[in-house]
Amino acid sequence: MKDPDFMARAIELAKKGRLKVQPNPMVGCVIVKNNKIIGEGWHKEYGKDHAEVNAIKNCKKIFGTKKALKLIAGSNVYVNLEPCSIENNTPPCSNALIECKIKKLFCGTLDPNPKINGKGIKLLKKSGIETNVGLLKNQCIQLNRIFFTNQKKSRPYIILKSAQSLDGKIALKSGESNWITNSESRKNSHHIRSRVKGILVGKNTAEQDNPSLTVRLSKNELGLDKGESIEQPVKIVLGNLNRSKKVSKIFAGNSKIIIASNQLAKKSRNVEYLKYRKKNFLEEFLQDLLDRNISSILVEGGQKTLNTFIMNNLFDELVLYTAPIFLGKESKDALSIHSPSAIKKSMKLEMVKLERFKDDIKTTYYNNNL
Amino acid sequence: MKDPDFMARAIELAKKGRLKVQPNPMVGCVIVKNNKIIGEGWHKEYGKDHAEVNAIKNCKKIFGTKKALKLIAGSNVYVNLEPCSIENNTPPCSNALIECKIKKLFCGTLDPNPKINGKGIKLLKKSGIETNVGLLKNQCIQLNRIFFTNQKKSRPYIILKSAQSLDGKIALKSGESNWITNSESRKNSHHIRSRVKGILVGKNTAEQDNPSLTVRLSKNELGLDKGESIEQPVKIVLGNLNRSKKVSKIFAGNSKIIIASNQLAKKSRNVEYLKYRKKNFLEEFLQDLLDRNISSILVEGGQKTLNTFIMNNLFDELVLYTAPIFLGKESKDALSIHSPSAIKKSMKLEMVKLERFKDDIKTTYYNNNL
Repeated sequence: MKDPDFMARAIELAKKGRLKVQPNPMVGCVIVKNNKIIGEGWHKEYGKDHAEVNAIKNCKKIFGTKKALKLIAGSNVYVNLEPCSIENNTPPCSNALIECKIKKLFCGTLDPNPKINGKGIKLLKKSGIETNVGLLKNQCIQLNRIFFTNQKKSRPYIILKSAQSLDGKIALKSGESNWITNSESRKNSHHIRSRVKGILVGKNTAEQDNPSLTVRLSKNELGLDKGESIEQPVKIVLGNLNRSKKVSKIFAGNSKIIIASNQLAKKSRNVEYLKYRKKNFLEEFLQDLLDRNISSILVEGGQKTLNTFIMNNLFDELVLYTAPIFLGKESKDALSIHSPSAIKKSMKLEMVKLERFKDDIKTTYYNNNL
Repeated sequence: MKDPDFMARAIELAKKGRLKVQPNPMVGCVIVKNNKIIGEGWHKEYGKDHAEVNAIKNCKKIFGTKKALKLIAGSNVYVNLEPCSIENNTPPCSNALIECKIKKLFCGTLDPNPKINGKGIKLLKKSGIETNVGLLKNQCIQLNRIFFTNQKKSRPYIILKSAQSLDGKIALKSGESNWITNSESRKNSHHIRSRVKGILVGKNTAEQDNPSLTVRLSKNELGLDKGESIEQPVKIVLGNLNRSKKVSKIFAGNSKIIIASNQLAKKSRNVEYLKYRKKNFLEEFLQDLLDRNISSILVEGGQKTLNTFIMNNLFDELVLYTAPIFLGKESKDALSIHSPSAIKKSMKLEMVKLERFKDDIKTTYYNNNL
């Protein structure tokens, strides 16, 4: 195995933390001596040990502490993100690597967090450890799109989701929208929900559809062990939503609810009302969400809400489920933003994934126009 | 190998005739003795030998006439479509099989042509040949969707094609539509052109876009040998199109042109004008196209023309190329038909193929609501 193979393994390990590390990044770590992996680990859950520490522990578990420390001394360590240099919930990882006297550190990218950016590497170098930054850099950045977006834009990573007909409609004129896509597509959309910290809908959608906004997948479907569980995403409503019979499902359960508008500010057990003075408070609101550790949100509709995000270029990912039906011109457009003056000037996305669920298709796009 | 394997081979052989047999069906034939293929053939070109005759010829070429005839006697023959019982351009195939004294015929489906339907099988049975009808029946019908449509609906097989933006737009308000999709998608669309006998556009599209309506692919790209060539599809315009500078490209070249409207009926070298009395002449016109051996058409637009076909439920296949751009609400809808009263009542298609061309996607649907 070569250096990129070990880094690829670190990325694979990192992914295991997908459902539980946010707002932290996913990080995997591989310790290599004489071209053999002697320990590996990943950041498993927010607030728990980081990947480097887990890899050292893993090595100790395999070889016993004494032999492990002997092996790690002079080893190469591969980690997708720069080891931290500051103490947050856990001691800084750079120190752990220095104490272990590793020979060389390969890291995929620097930490975009300005408090760390380069400082972890500097610490290691000072202690005489060789460093290599940038191995599989693009893959390492893609892996942590959420974390990088949080750090660079000071807002949650935003995924827009729409379920539409072949002719791009989201609902009949009557408002009927259950169900355009098939049950497999709808089930799949719960996997997206499971990977975000919050699910956002507009007030109208909340009132008309009375959605639960929960992840309804079994542990098995989520790839979790028996003892594990995930936190349900926070339910977020844009607009002045009042508690009423019509919206009973959002208020059911114990999940946290955040309601934002420029009109009302009440308090309730698990409901936080945020009031904004400005009419256009979206960006301020997004920053407030990140301050509450909501590092990623899924915007599920309706049309007005989706288009507000698109028109303000406030999205990182667009997921479209398209059903093989026609809803006709009297129905509501899924996406309805202002037209460009020329095709060349239109907003262009990057297609990253194409999936099929029976006769429905799912397309996933990244927005790189940021 | 088992019976279905031999039939699958016959289907594979049949496909080799894809670009050249219309309005005939694609047919492949495999002759098997003692579980070994001793001859195979396919219908190569309209007006030329049928598959069964070519398979017998192939056997004779391999073993010499005398040994071949000895081998074919008592053999099993696999063919995707019922052998013909009437003389058209070539002598009926049933007779050839009877003369060769085969033991058993497996055919995938009966010929939907009412002049043959079951008569070929009857002839064989009468001569003491065992018959089995229906092996891989669905695949055999799918293979010849064009031919079955022609026979059952008395009209060409109709493929609708549209190139649209993510928000379902076909052109800007100004009419600008070059180019929504990327060059790979546009190139791919020439492959669809190569498989149809006619390309149809509305008068407005002909005037605004001045399209050539030709297949522009190399022999290599078409999978043709050096000596082979394909006939360019007939150019078909719906509406009262006059020769003018604006539409110079359609009238360039030697391809046949058919123009249909309820207004004008002129004549010209390679241009046929068809005049209809009724305002709604589409079905009559389609029958006239089939009478001219145009067994399949590709409808390329514009919006009005596409929607006329959709609203009249006159299409067998829909191909959508979707580019990862937004053209906005002021732009023209690709598909704009009347809405159903409920989602359950909407027209539903079957998705048969999902392809990707860089960031564009291509989805192919069958219309089974016929």
